[in-house]
Amino acid sequence: MFETMKRVSTLLAVSLVFVVSACATAHDPLPSWNAGATKTEILDFVAAVTDQSGGDYVEPAERVAVFDNDGTLWVEYPMYTQVLFIFDRVKLLAPKHPEWSTKQPFKALLAGDMKTVGAAGEKGILEMAMATHSGMTGAEFEKEVTHWLATHEQPKFKRLYSECIYQPQLELLAYLRASGFKTFIVSGGGIQFMRPMTEKAYGVPRDQVVGSSIVSEFKIENGRPGIMRMPKVDFVNDKAGKPVGIYEHIGRRPILAFGNSDSDMQMIQYTTGGKGKRLGLFVHHTDGDREYAYDRKSHVGKLDKALDQSKSNGWIIVDMKDDWNTVFPAR
Amino acid sequence: MFETMKRVSTLLAVSLVFVVSACATAHDPLPSWNAGATKTEILDFVAAVTDQSGGDYVEPAERVAVFDNDGTLWVEYPMYTQVLFIFDRVKLLAPKHPEWSTKQPFKALLAGDMKTVGAAGEKGILEMAMATHSGMTGAEFEKEVTHWLATHEQPKFKRLYSECIYQPQLELLAYLRASGFKTFIVSGGGIQFMRPMTEKAYGVPRDQVVGSSIVSEFKIENGRPGIMRMPKVDFVNDKAGKPVGIYEHIGRRPILAFGNSDSDMQMIQYTTGGKGKRLGLFVHHTDGDREYAYDRKSHVGKLDKALDQSKSNGWIIVDMKDDWNTVFPAR
Repeated sequence: MFETMKRVSTLLAVSLVFVVSACATAHDPLPSWNAGATKTEILDFVAAVTDQSGGDYVEPAERVAVFDNDGTLWVEYPMYTQVLFIFDRVKLLAPKHPEWSTKQPFKALLAGDMKTVGAAGEKGILEMAMATHSGMTGAEFEKEVTHWLATHEQPKFKRLYSECIYQPQLELLAYLRASGFKTFIVSGGGIQFMRPMTEKAYGVPRDQVVGSSIVSEFKIENGRPGIMRMPKVDFVNDKAGKPVGIYEHIGRRPILAFGNSDSDMQMIQYTTGGKGKRLGLFVHHTDGDREYAYDRKSHVGKLDKALDQSKSNGWIIVDMKDDWNTVFPAR
Repeated sequence: MFETMKRVSTLLAVSLVFVVSACATAHDPLPSWNAGATKTEILDFVAAVTDQSGGDYVEPAERVAVFDNDGTLWVEYPMYTQVLFIFDRVKLLAPKHPEWSTKQPFKALLAGDMKTVGAAGEKGILEMAMATHSGMTGAEFEKEVTHWLATHEQPKFKRLYSECIYQPQLELLAYLRASGFKTFIVSGGGIQFMRPMTEKAYGVPRDQVVGSSIVSEFKIENGRPGIMRMPKVDFVNDKAGKPVGIYEHIGRRPILAFGNSDSDMQMIQYTTGGKGKRLGLFVHHTDGDREYAYDRKSHVGKLDKALDQSKSNGWIIVDMKDDWNTVFPAR
């Protein structure tokens, strides 16, 4: 019986691939990408690794594609969305934490003194993240994130943060999946902060999200088993942490990696350093009108070394202004 | 175009589900499971959560099933397979480690004094694991594991360890997947020790394996980027660690969990403690002839508290001797 089922599913799968290929030939799978070298390189890469008769063929199980989130799939400028969430959480929880009125950088944030907050740097952000992302169950945290994302608009684009996602990347994700790829998010952002939105926004299931985490513990309270979030860093999935997160979570070296900043360099080195055909790409934010323009000197998503090294490494720099004819999905 | 593709895939998916349902009605999806209460409970559970018109319906994305590995999917008696691998690694590497000739429990193992090795307990095993599973790249470790699994036979069954897997569980895994479930392994074993075999043996992709890990680091050596394995414990995915591993890696509370020992209790508490219809199961090793018989007093896979608490919690105890008409796949 399983043999029959298997044959039937194979037949259906083959038909599906045929239909998809037929559509891809007849239509453009990446309509928001302008014709040009970048688009051609992407299409050629996918064609090469899926062509069974070619020398660059890659088995479907090995077709792993990884995408950074902030600045690669959604807007990160002028401040990472999760950091804005942290700031709001501090303000919301302040009445329960009188000690914050004298403790930096909480005090500065509550007084609106963003210069002092900025001076506290990543360490200060991390401290506020610990204080506001722990001491609750996983389910409670998810509820907070979901509510915040459903009620906060990005001021420049007047749309929810969870809708400030890039249309060309949605098309690329869908195209890769239709070509037998498994798509993953590999981000420095909190893994549990991202999960409430990734399925709906990007079509990426929760278990295909790799991110930073705090320590969590199993607890049974009032007979109800759950997960308690603790105020301690577990894993930072950024820079050299990204290939480690990929090794631990995915267990396979990707053949395509897409980032937008120097923090993605190691992930892209790891990806393009493997044998066989590989593709490494960076979004270059060059569009001050439709989105933002920033790179070498930016306080978020700094793209500097990777720009210098892209040519010698064969990495593709995607120029937002030139390569994308649409930035956000239509409403 | 995407809309068309989507409609076509939906049509094909619907046909597939129809074919699978038709087959499932006409044939037995679990032929190695004997008719009886256990089999009925499994079939009824899957029918209930997949029946869109019923009150227990669960969306496909929420259909997460988790399986322990040792003693649940493959043989763990009289010693966990990975521990045998560790012992072999110590013997293999001993010439390069003269210090082991005076250091316990290495010294005892090399002298064949298993009583002293046993007395060193889990701590001793862990020490030997660290010493033999680190100091190499991820790719090198994978090669070692793959070679060992391809060349070592389980003495009682005279088949490779990677073939000492349970036929009834292979059928259950396939049946769950055909019913829209995503199947995961959640084991105390090493995540990178399991991955080389899970895809071929169980049809479980590498990224759907959750296990224990040691710390790893990204390194570029001679221009080649890779992962270096370090002699330090990262995460122990056992007992209360299992629900934590599920939260971090899968990000969703399972609706079905299958284990075989008290080490799986927390995972099954976490699973069955959620809202809606849930299923928790334990393999009870009762078959000394075809496999092994052990439970409350065993040095591996101890099943004691879970046996006592199964009735009040509605957990199913699967009796290997009575419930399975076949243990291993035919050769």
